[in-house]
Amino acid sequence: MTDPRFSYLQTPCLLVDEARMQRNIHRLSDHAVTLGVSLRPHLKTTKSVEAARYVLADGNGPATVSTLAEAEVFAAAGIRDILYGVGICASKLDRIIALHRAGCRVTVLLDCAAQAEAVASASRAAGIVIPALIEIDSDGHRSGLSPNDPALVEVGRILVNGGAELTGVLCHAGGSYGSVGRDAHVKCAEQERLAVVQAADALRAAGLPCPVVSVGSTPTAHAAKDLTGVTELRAGVYVFFDLVMAGIGACSVDDIALSVLTTVIGHQKEREWTICDAGWMAMSRDRGTAAQRVDQGYGIVCDSAGVPIPGLIMVQANQEHGVIARHPDFKGAIPTLPVDTQLRILPNHACATAAQHSGYHVVPKEAGAPLMKWSRFGGW
Amino acid sequence: MTDPRFSYLQTPCLLVDEARMQRNIHRLSDHAVTLGVSLRPHLKTTKSVEAARYVLADGNGPATVSTLAEAEVFAAAGIRDILYGVGICASKLDRIIALHRAGCRVTVLLDCAAQAEAVASASRAAGIVIPALIEIDSDGHRSGLSPNDPALVEVGRILVNGGAELTGVLCHAGGSYGSVGRDAHVKCAEQERLAVVQAADALRAAGLPCPVVSVGSTPTAHAAKDLTGVTELRAGVYVFFDLVMAGIGACSVDDIALSVLTTVIGHQKEREWTICDAGWMAMSRDRGTAAQRVDQGYGIVCDSAGVPIPGLIMVQANQEHGVIARHPDFKGAIPTLPVDTQLRILPNHACATAAQHSGYHVVPKEAGAPLMKWSRFGGW
Repeated sequence: MTDPRFSYLQTPCLLVDEARMQRNIHRLSDHAVTLGVSLRPHLKTTKSVEAARYVLADGNGPATVSTLAEAEVFAAAGIRDILYGVGICASKLDRIIALHRAGCRVTVLLDCAAQAEAVASASRAAGIVIPALIEIDSDGHRSGLSPNDPALVEVGRILVNGGAELTGVLCHAGGSYGSVGRDAHVKCAEQERLAVVQAADALRAAGLPCPVVSVGSTPTAHAAKDLTGVTELRAGVYVFFDLVMAGIGACSVDDIALSVLTTVIGHQKEREWTICDAGWMAMSRDRGTAAQRVDQGYGIVCDSAGVPIPGLIMVQANQEHGVIARHPDFKGAIPTLPVDTQLRILPNHACATAAQHSGYHVVPKEAGAPLMKWSRFGGW
Repeated sequence: MTDPRFSYLQTPCLLVDEARMQRNIHRLSDHAVTLGVSLRPHLKTTKSVEAARYVLADGNGPATVSTLAEAEVFAAAGIRDILYGVGICASKLDRIIALHRAGCRVTVLLDCAAQAEAVASASRAAGIVIPALIEIDSDGHRSGLSPNDPALVEVGRILVNGGAELTGVLCHAGGSYGSVGRDAHVKCAEQERLAVVQAADALRAAGLPCPVVSVGSTPTAHAAKDLTGVTELRAGVYVFFDLVMAGIGACSVDDIALSVLTTVIGHQKEREWTICDAGWMAMSRDRGTAAQRVDQGYGIVCDSAGVPIPGLIMVQANQEHGVIARHPDFKGAIPTLPVDTQLRILPNHACATAAQHSGYHVVPKEAGAPLMKWSRFGGW
């Protein structure tokens, strides 16, 4: 039975389950309170001002972003404390300065002397003290200095002596996405904590300031048991969660708040294929579960109420065609789904799937209440 | 040396090489003339009215689209003959009718009785004869009836007797994307031709009309040597081409007209990693070369003029970080690329990469001429 509220929706489109999203948000904000750290949610997953009101403390608190476009949209919406969590380069500093002039404190991230010199130089030229965090690497995942790298103090001194602000240190334990189970995530979280605390100690021992000690990734943020020495926690995808996070045990499938509503448009009966109108354009090309214990294809197929249909996944995707078929491990009967049936697909990676769409249809937590529409933006 | 025209661009962003794009367009339109068929380019790759003027015959000729949003935008731009090349369902017929009422002839695609009945019923209810093609399957790739399936004539009769228009048959040899080399593509093209010609004969033998016999995929469209019995050729990605098409020999790397301009934002020197600001959000998650003979990661790295840098590819991507490193097969020296260096990345899959952006910066074929800006849209 199709939900009558979905009958006017043009598929494919994004659905958000408000009750699940709120539960996800409260779980982590409660945990941050228990740990005694502030929470700086990453808005790169939702990219929506309406969603940000749910996610941020008091609807307006500290935020992390992944693009200057996000910083500009959220600054225009009144958010005044933003961390741009991707390494800065000289050509982006004009927009950072403009945001400061508009009253938004944007902190930048860096890990080398050339970046620190660019930030210090721009600070002096603009007469604005740009705050900067030094990125620390705890697991070889991507960017950042090793906490015992002498360049750490050198970079800190360039900032302080050059007229910028050394705000502290930041670590993102991205390697935790490849670790399975709570025990593994607890270890990643402790490794992340030790790296930044060691780096903060090194800066302070050199006479440099380090008020902010920031950690976070969705798996480590939820698993951390003790954050002594840390001041701030970051996470992003937890707001929606997804099959990749479920696959590593960071959530359950029942926590996934984002899905793609799709309509059946055909069949290939000999192969037990059902063709639907959500292809990779609607799902994204993300195949994050391919490397996990259970490969969920392009996503788990649910009925239009969001209840998974046993054994059905999207096995392949073309641009505007999704092929729904039996999971190779499933031996039971699978249902016939006539043309025009609406289904929901739970995605591998919420950040990637949401990015394919320009808005969300939100299913309110009150049973039967009308859908809400939230905007979403992209770009740089 | 950075192209001075790129100094004001915010990275990551899309670049189009106008000269290469025009060469790609002319190559296929000349081939269609030689084969004696009309060309109905697929606009799903570019999704741009400005690009459509280059691609379509006389800037305005017959087009194929993959979404109703494309049909609506291109109809509003004055294009009057559009094939919606994805299986139709009842809930989408209101928008098809509205397009017809606005003066645009939109042909739908279907392969089962339920769809034919819905199209016939909508035709009668609206007093508009909706034209429909029956999809034929030549290679088990996705949708379509086998040319000898008795349902073919049944579906045709439902359309004709029910008040819709049976326009003909269509085949898309999507399996050709997995075939390597010109000889293999020639065989796929002949298989595609034989399937639709057999289907057209079956319809005509049953006393049904079949004026349109449509084939196409980028590899088969270029490889076809004889299209006897076919009236129309379709292709899409050839306008830009990409590494997947180069990997199967459907083009050379020098034909690729689309790239992502990116800026270096950091390094991990011990690993010879260069970090840039084009992550998967800018490149898409498409890893289409992963299954090919040469895995190009997330793309081939070029200097800002578009010349490939030997041995450098984007080996991994996070949301807003690309990791540039040595191709595992390359043994030579790789250059140091300082922070703020601009680079271009050639993508695996032009349709997917372009879809991550809201516009194109076009490098004109006249040396040194100012960049042009073309819009691009998405959605459904």
